[in-house]
Amino acid sequence: MGEMKKDVSLVVIRRLPRYYRYLTELKESGIVRISSKALAEKMQVTASQIRQDLNCFGGFGQQGYGYNVSQLQAAIGDILGLNENHTTIIIGAGNLGRAIANYGSFEKRGYRLIGIFDINPDVVGKVINGITVSHMDTIDEFFQKQKPDIAILTIPKNVAVEVAQKLASLGIRGIWNFSNMDLHMAVEGVEIENVHLSDSLMTLSYKIGKRKGENK
Amino acid sequence: MGEMKKDVSLVVIRRLPRYYRYLTELKESGIVRISSKALAEKMQVTASQIRQDLNCFGGFGQQGYGYNVSQLQAAIGDILGLNENHTTIIIGAGNLGRAIANYGSFEKRGYRLIGIFDINPDVVGKVINGITVSHMDTIDEFFQKQKPDIAILTIPKNVAVEVAQKLASLGIRGIWNFSNMDLHMAVEGVEIENVHLSDSLMTLSYKIGKRKGENK
Repeated sequence: MGEMKKDVSLVVIRRLPRYYRYLTELKESGIVRISSKALAEKMQVTASQIRQDLNCFGGFGQQGYGYNVSQLQAAIGDILGLNENHTTIIIGAGNLGRAIANYGSFEKRGYRLIGIFDINPDVVGKVINGITVSHMDTIDEFFQKQKPDIAILTIPKNVAVEVAQKLASLGIRGIWNFSNMDLHMAVEGVEIENVHLSDSLMTLSYKIGKRKGENK
Repeated sequence: MGEMKKDVSLVVIRRLPRYYRYLTELKESGIVRISSKALAEKMQVTASQIRQDLNCFGGFGQQGYGYNVSQLQAAIGDILGLNENHTTIIIGAGNLGRAIANYGSFEKRGYRLIGIFDINPDVVGKVINGITVSHMDTIDEFFQKQKPDIAILTIPKNVAVEVAQKLASLGIRGIWNFSNMDLHMAVEGVEIENVHLSDSLMTLSYKIGKRKGENK
């Protein structure tokens, strides 16, 4: 499996979470199997795209049968590592950090929140979703006892590099970065996913402008 | 311009916000021009991808000169409709809604927040970033006076369809949807961008798993 994964482009990998979401919904609504055509319609992509993507992992479909929904969902979950019970911490207990801490779906997908950190004395000591916010000063100690896999950075841009380097030195494996600061250059040996919320808002305003243009 | 836009695939459009972000950063750090090679390195894509993408809009580069940073940034901003001063409202003043309301970068990119709505009596009447949260009951009246362009949905999945249909009937042009409910089928004539925060988290756990596999 390791070998196979290595050859799959990240472009395909980035499409897998979407497959996973749709398949989870289908599974939850009791659907046992689905044709690639029907799955394609639901997801608004082409059936050949779906077949191509899933073939990268050996293919799960059978000619004339389609896909077994729960098998395919489980297989994609395995590829994405959703069954590995990743431990996570949140750095920054502002509105966004709190929103993420309260977001129940993460638990379901194997992300277990084990710590929340901040430096603001008004926030440290508060309980969010059952977890008491700790001061950043205690993070070394925390890492000595527990080795979180993923840090969720919901902190301002100007402190992001410093905090990311600190986390890297403590042995964090991945950073889910909401800070709007590109961290790829700043830290080595840590996987990083930058989240840029406003990118899709900009796409939306393009679509609105285009529609207006067409109606003229 | 309208004709040109129509032919550009949404795949290319979705890459423009990223160009816009990088060019804005370059501009703010005082860089006047950049070669496609240097821009490519910074953005971790190929130079030919950049040339290809920007050629869709007539091309902005000059052989041997590269790109004029501020011209290119302004042109992409125009394409994305960032100079049109879109008015926005937020539906759902929970943690995520509040995080977005307080996010300063939106104003800079031409999104003007003019209203926040909720149904929770503990939240209605509170002031967030200078805007008093109104009850959803008053939204008809609000639309009669002001015609917001974009609604940001930060509400639970189970009420998303109902609210989206309401907004569509009132004439909203676009919905930036954080509700984890696919709304494309539910509303017609409204542009929708669904935001699935956890997709990039799933990609991150894939990368972590892959790295672990390699180290074995």
